Amino acid sequence: MISFLKKKSSGKAGLPPGALIHVGEQKLDKVKMTLISYTEDTIEERQLDSIEECFSCQEGPGITWVNIDGLHDVDIINRIGSSFNIHPLVLEDILNTEQRTKLDDLENYLFIVAKVFYFEPDDYRVKYEQISMILFKNMVFSFQEDIGDVFEPLRERLRKNRGRIRKMGADYLIYALLDAIVDSYFSVLEEVGYKVETAEDILLGAPEHDILQQIHNMKRDLVILRKSIWPLRGILGSLEKGESWLVSEKTRIYFRDIYDHTILVIENIEICRDIVSGMTEMFLSSVSNRMNEVMKMLTVIATIFIPLTFIAGIYGMNFDKMPELRWEWGYPATLILMVVAVILMLIWFKRKKII
Amino acid sequence: MISFLKKKSSGKAGLPPGALIHVGEQKLDKVKMTLISYTEDTIEERQLDSIEECFSCQEGPGITWVNIDGLHDVDIINRIGSSFNIHPLVLEDILNTEQRTKLDDLENYLFIVAKVFYFEPDDYRVKYEQISMILFKNMVFSFQEDIGDVFEPLRERLRKNRGRIRKMGADYLIYALLDAIVDSYFSVLEEVGYKVETAEDILLGAPEHDILQQIHNMKRDLVILRKSIWPLRGILGSLEKGESWLVSEKTRIYFRDIYDHTILVIENIEICRDIVSGMTEMFLSSVSNRMNEVMKMLTVIATIFIPLTFIAGIYGMNFDKMPELRWEWGYPATLILMVVAVILMLIWFKRKKII
Amino acid sequence: MISFLKKKSSGKAGLPPGALIHVGEQKLDKVKMTLISYTEDTIEERQLDSIEECFSCQEGPGITWVNIDGLHDVDIINRIGSSFNIHPLVLEDILNTEQRTKLDDLENYLFIVAKVFYFEPDDYRVKYEQISMILFKNMVFSFQEDIGDVFEPLRERLRKNRGRIRKMGADYLIYALLDAIVDSYFSVLEEVGYKVETAEDILLGAPEHDILQQIHNMKRDLVILRKSIWPLRGILGSLEKGESWLVSEKTRIYFRDIYDHTILVIENIEICRDIVSGMTEMFLSSVSNRMNEVMKMLTVIATIFIPLTFIAGIYGMNFDKMPELRWEWGYPATLILMVVAVILMLIWFKRKKII
Amino acid sequence: MISFLKKKSSGKAGLPPGALIHVGEQKLDKVKMTLISYTEDTIEERQLDSIEECFSCQEGPGITWVNIDGLHDVDIINRIGSSFNIHPLVLEDILNTEQRTKLDDLENYLFIVAKVFYFEPDDYRVKYEQISMILFKNMVFSFQEDIGDVFEPLRERLRKNRGRIRKMGADYLIYALLDAIVDSYFSVLEEVGYKVETAEDILLGAPEHDILQQIHNMKRDLVILRKSIWPLRGILGSLEKGESWLVSEKTRIYFRDIYDHTILVIENIEICRDIVSGMTEMFLSSVSNRMNEVMKMLTVIATIFIPLTFIAGIYGMNFDKMPELRWEWGYPATLILMVVAVILMLIWFKRKKII
Amino acid sequence: MISFLKKKSSGKAGLPPGALIHVGEQKLDKVKMTLISYTEDTIEERQLDSIEECFSCQEGPGITWVNIDGLHDVDIINRIGSSFNIHPLVLEDILNTEQRTKLDDLENYLFIVAKVFYFEPDDYRVKYEQISMILFKNMVFSFQEDIGDVFEPLRERLRKNRGRIRKMGADYLIYALLDAIVDSYFSVLEEVGYKVETAEDILLGAPEHDILQQIHNMKRDLVILRKSIWPLRGILGSLEKGESWLVSEKTRIYFRDIYDHTILVIENIEICRDIVSGMTEMFLSSVSNRMNEVMKMLTVIATIFIPLTFIAGIYGMNFDKMPELRWEWGYPATLILMVVAVILMLIWFKRKKII
Repeated sequence: MISFLKKKSSGKAGLPPGALIHVGEQKLDKVKMTLISYTEDTIEERQLDSIEECFSCQEGPGITWVNIDGLHDVDIINRIGSSFNIHPLVLEDILNTEQRTKLDDLENYLFIVAKVFYFEPDDYRVKYEQISMILFKNMVFSFQEDIGDVFEPLRERLRKNRGRIRKMGADYLIYALLDAIVDSYFSVLEEVGYKVETAEDILLGAPEHDILQQIHNMKRDLVILRKSIWPLRGILGSLEKGESWLVSEKTRIYFRDIYDHTILVIENIEICRDIVSGMTEMFLSSVSNRMNEVMKMLTVIATIFIPLTFIAGIYGMNFDKMPELRWEWGYPATLILMVVAVILMLIWFKRKKII
Repeated sequence: MISFLKKKSSGKAGLPPGALIHVGEQKLDKVKMTLISYTEDTIEERQLDSIEECFSCQEGPGITWVNIDGLHDVDIINRIGSSFNIHPLVLEDILNTEQRTKLDDLENYLFIVAKVFYFEPDDYRVKYEQISMILFKNMVFSFQEDIGDVFEPLRERLRKNRGRIRKMGADYLIYALLDAIVDSYFSVLEEVGYKVETAEDILLGAPEHDILQQIHNMKRDLVILRKSIWPLRGILGSLEKGESWLVSEKTRIYFRDIYDHTILVIENIEICRDIVSGMTEMFLSSVSNRMNEVMKMLTVIATIFIPLTFIAGIYGMNFDKMPELRWEWGYPATLILMVVAVILMLIWFKRKKII
Repeated sequence: MISFLKKKSSGKAGLPPGALIHVGEQKLDKVKMTLISYTEDTIEERQLDSIEECFSCQEGPGITWVNIDGLHDVDIINRIGSSFNIHPLVLEDILNTEQRTKLDDLENYLFIVAKVFYFEPDDYRVKYEQISMILFKNMVFSFQEDIGDVFEPLRERLRKNRGRIRKMGADYLIYALLDAIVDSYFSVLEEVGYKVETAEDILLGAPEHDILQQIHNMKRDLVILRKSIWPLRGILGSLEKGESWLVSEKTRIYFRDIYDHTILVIENIEICRDIVSGMTEMFLSSVSNRMNEVMKMLTVIATIFIPLTFIAGIYGMNFDKMPELRWEWGYPATLILMVVAVILMLIWFKRKKII
Repeated sequence: MISFLKKKSSGKAGLPPGALIHVGEQKLDKVKMTLISYTEDTIEERQLDSIEECFSCQEGPGITWVNIDGLHDVDIINRIGSSFNIHPLVLEDILNTEQRTKLDDLENYLFIVAKVFYFEPDDYRVKYEQISMILFKNMVFSFQEDIGDVFEPLRERLRKNRGRIRKMGADYLIYALLDAIVDSYFSVLEEVGYKVETAEDILLGAPEHDILQQIHNMKRDLVILRKSIWPLRGILGSLEKGESWLVSEKTRIYFRDIYDHTILVIENIEICRDIVSGMTEMFLSSVSNRMNEVMKMLTVIATIFIPLTFIAGIYGMNFDKMPELRWEWGYPATLILMVVAVILMLIWFKRKKII
Repeated sequence: MISFLKKKSSGKAGLPPGALIHVGEQKLDKVKMTLISYTEDTIEERQLDSIEECFSCQEGPGITWVNIDGLHDVDIINRIGSSFNIHPLVLEDILNTEQRTKLDDLENYLFIVAKVFYFEPDDYRVKYEQISMILFKNMVFSFQEDIGDVFEPLRERLRKNRGRIRKMGADYLIYALLDAIVDSYFSVLEEVGYKVETAEDILLGAPEHDILQQIHNMKRDLVILRKSIWPLRGILGSLEKGESWLVSEKTRIYFRDIYDHTILVIENIEICRDIVSGMTEMFLSSVSNRMNEVMKMLTVIATIFIPLTFIAGIYGMNFDKMPELRWEWGYPATLILMVVAVILMLIWFKRKKII
């Protein structure tokens, strides 16, 4: 989260709005452009060498999906922008990979920004990437920084003509893209749920201090997940209600379906947050409890031996006149006295439920 | 909750939407289909061998209720879907047993998903099962994973023609089903309330560390209950307002009645949550208090005996010239000094309210 | 709260909706029915032996108020229901004494359920009773479990024709009943406020562990009060806005007045809740503080005497060659050394602000 | 807050609504009535002996402001009520000094209740007084319990014809009164802010237990301030929107101005609440920290001297055969051993960062 | 925050509303007035000696931006006010530098108040300054207390005709000013984020007591940031919706852009708040944990040496008849006994996981 703020302020502050600059790390050597064009009966899939190759597709009878991996080549975005008459602020938003999840309805096209979440295998923290999508009547653009793979099953379905995707329009394609994105939330949520359960088990056992860091990380991850997914709810709600002419009556029910999924994700994030929020308290409680145990032991030992040592100290005094010291049975009597004192104290401890 | 996420992501991710796959464990060997068909005067109840037997009932004069226990036979759901012209996404939702509680109005029929709650006797935790219902003009379908028994009293009422159920339409039957479901919430809430009261009594006594786990479990159970029941409020509200033509004017007041019950359940869940949320703090407070007691005892013992031991240590020194050691009454005087010191300290402790 | 859940589930689950069963304890031997019928000039008050005696009053010119104490005689409720054409669900709600506070507008009559609060003198906890009211054009029914006395001042006003009550209609009578109920909230709130203030004083002194139970009870009482009174706000708001034809223009301003009172009660409950919610923290803080005091004392005593005892231990050793032991002034020098050590340590403690 | 509840219940419960009784302490011997009547060019200010003197002013061309200090003379209120045709409930609200802050629009006049806050110099706690205002077309009544001085600067402005007040109508006078009231909030907020800052400084130093009481008092004061000022927001909002015909178009922008001020006050109260709410935690943290310091010292002293005392104890034993005791250098060797042990332990403590 | 309250109450209370007084410190010697007047082709920038020089610009064809640094010269504000017919309350708001962030639509012009945030290098706390803006059809006034530099990049863009700013109207200029202000929030947020991350690292290590002050300061800064930025959301939302005729259709999309940025800032502030709010708890947890470690050490040392010292005490007693003392191997046997006792205790500690 905070990393983004640095990028933003260092790279862009002071530039005129609408100036096209890629804000984010360059993650790929070369921009990769993939075009998939399909009708119910035909499908064509190819890599584009230059973005101009796709400009003619708009008039074709089928649906065209252009996926662009890599955002550092500002020129490509620029040419798409001027060919398809896209507002400069939209282009700027595509290039700035720290946008909010949002939907902009610009009459001729819809612009959608969403996040895909995944787990970084190195430090096992939640990471995310931005996916921007533009929906025209017969065409969909999608923009990613990295070569994403959340869309691969969807491509497979297109190729094999599974489900009803090739029978439907570009709005259904956008639905399918969003559905793939929301599915990525379920995977991440599963991992988070696993981490939460593990932490719960540790906390109910004998937690170490480093559990605090884990709890803290989970809290952060959940906060960030929630903030990113929350706006999607509104977006899908407005798509479902058919506020744009680009979404047909027939497709709206599908948006309701992912709307439901998104609510489910949000609810489960909330449940996880509820569970995690009590964990620091549980840790504190556990620490207190163990300190209690340690203190009890110290108290028992000290309470038993300090009086005994005192008795021994008495008969270690060097007064000339100490009749007990001269008695025949003085020593064993003293030992017996000590044993009795210990027994009495143990009984008292038992009653007080200290041991 | 988290278990569901696993099922979802492992079983379904990447499939085309609307693909019919049963998400959940198979709990029954064989799907059991029960048909109850009734008018005010007649009632017929029978097990169906094939789902096609009920297809003709739709045109009959009476009301038909088909209850399907077991969801693993996708084929049956599929055939119902095509016969009754049900949207594939609805069929998918029936099969995926981790839906949100929801109401979908699809013009010709209403689709309702709700949860039934019960207590698992083994680990005494709240469990739930999904019940899907479809309301047509003259027909109701209900789908469960297991052979449910929350509907048995309702069947009994139908058979014996008690109350007004056989005089009313299919919308009243849906009401009766939902009423049975909401009644299950009262039973669960009673158990939860009992657990909360038990935990309160323990906390006001001398709680052990394992109470923390109980508190944690209660919190989770209440969070999950709340999330599942909350949406029912909106559903019943919209049924009561008669937003669907399938619900007649006469039946709407009954939905208002279960709407009130649902609010009552939610309010009582909130009260339980309020009570439970303060419990960790009470436990911490109790642990602190007991540690205080233990520390006081240690302090009293140590404060009394350490100075005495010091006095004994003084007269245990081996200096050649220690006039006290030679005195006739040195030893008893020392003992008396010690007793006086103890008495003074006890008085001081009393005044400081330490003992 | 939890007691109600038991009654509900054990007594009613599985019965057809609208089945009339009294849910609650029977608190009276015999149902007591009191009729007060008045016009501006005349008033008649009498006990009814049978409920049928009041049926003719509806056509009379005056206003009739029938108060029924005791709900166990289902038959009476039933006969009222059929005579006045009251919906079975309303009758069911009258008999089930664990309803939510609510207002149902059933065209010909208004049905209002509210709670009266009082303090149980035995355990000094907040208790409540349900009062149901039905408002017809010229007639008001009120139902209580016990012989309530919150209405006695109102009866007195009716008899003595004080205020404008005998000049107004049945809607004003309902207002007067609700006003008496809201007045009971002020009494209870005064008691709660007194308990809160007492607890505050104790907490700022030297609280014992049992204050926790009191805090816990106050929290519960306030939660329950709040949940019961909160819905009254909406009810009075809708009465004030004149949403029912049964409430005349002239009476609406009076409902606004109790609406204001109810808001005042709710606000004061919120203030009490705010104050009580910080109390466990204050108790914890107080316990910590006292433990701190105890630990300081232990530390001071131990830190002073342990080194002294060590010095005494040194000269208690039996080495053959210990020149100090042979010195003429060895013993007094050692004692002086000890006194100096104590003084130095006391100075150091003072500086560190430990004593 | 709680004091009010006592007054209410003891003084008024059971009386008919609209019965005029002064609820509150009598703070003045005699009711003081001040009339200020002004046009743009003339101003007249005089004390009234009887309230009837002002009745004729309503028809005059100028604006008349009657301020009444002292509410115990119910008769005066009553005569105003019948002369100006004021609703009995409004008169009752004027006399009951524990009303909510509110605005009632009664067609011919507006009735406004607000609170003035000040600091009681004795115990330095926030106190408040109620001011009721009635706005007619050409006339304003204001009612206070005490001889208020928050309106004195306003009177001065009227007398000296400063600002535009004498050019505007009665609605502007009401605005000026409310502005004076809101200004009193800024003064109180300044004092509260000063108390908060003082408490912060103490907490970051070495807080004593009595800071808890201060924190508790600040919390209460802020809660009460917030509850009293919050409704003013809505009142000013509705005046600004010109919902009453008594407020002219020209004056509305002035109400927007105090609306902004009120929001500013509320926001600053919220900021104070946010700061204060973390203070108990800070105190706890500080107590824990100091206990930590004390425990560390005890541990260091005990850990150093207990082993040394043990060594001295060894050579204090009286076994016949203890060769070390006979050695020439036994005693100095033992002392050196002790010094070495101390040094080693100190090094270890340093490394563990305990000292 | 609290400083402002002092200024307000001491400087202004009792003055007539609309009285022009500068509330705030005077930060500049002389008021500096800069005029920039531009069309698409021409640009003129000059310092004004008297404010009257800009009065003629209003009729010109281009856009005029007058920036005024320094607010202590009330006369200048006054002359602008009367020339451009600005409402006295607006002038008052410009001079009072503790306004809320707000937008007032006064038909002929829009009045906007916003805050610019920066970090005070001295104490590294968040500070802010108020910027007021007035938008006329062809003219923009901006008022600052200090010579601000957040607008410098914007001036540079105007001079060099970069971006589309010189092609657009005065509404776009207001947009550009607000954009520069919102950019300042990103810089501050970056710094805050850095402080939060640093504090997190410290907390997960070994935090000292002074971290509490840092946490407290961060909380305050975030609260103040949030309160100042929050209202901007509403302002930009209403500008984007085009509620004023002064904002053209073409410019509205730009306001949507900064609206998105503002939401992003608010969300990130919320994330920071969520993270910071758990920090005191983490500190407490860390203190508890370290106290636990210290107590464990004390317990181990005391538990080992107290019994040993007791044994040594036994054989330091001076009874005549103590056979062990006479035994040949009494001393070494005792030493061996002690070593065995120590080993047993260490094993027991290991098992109990205390060491």
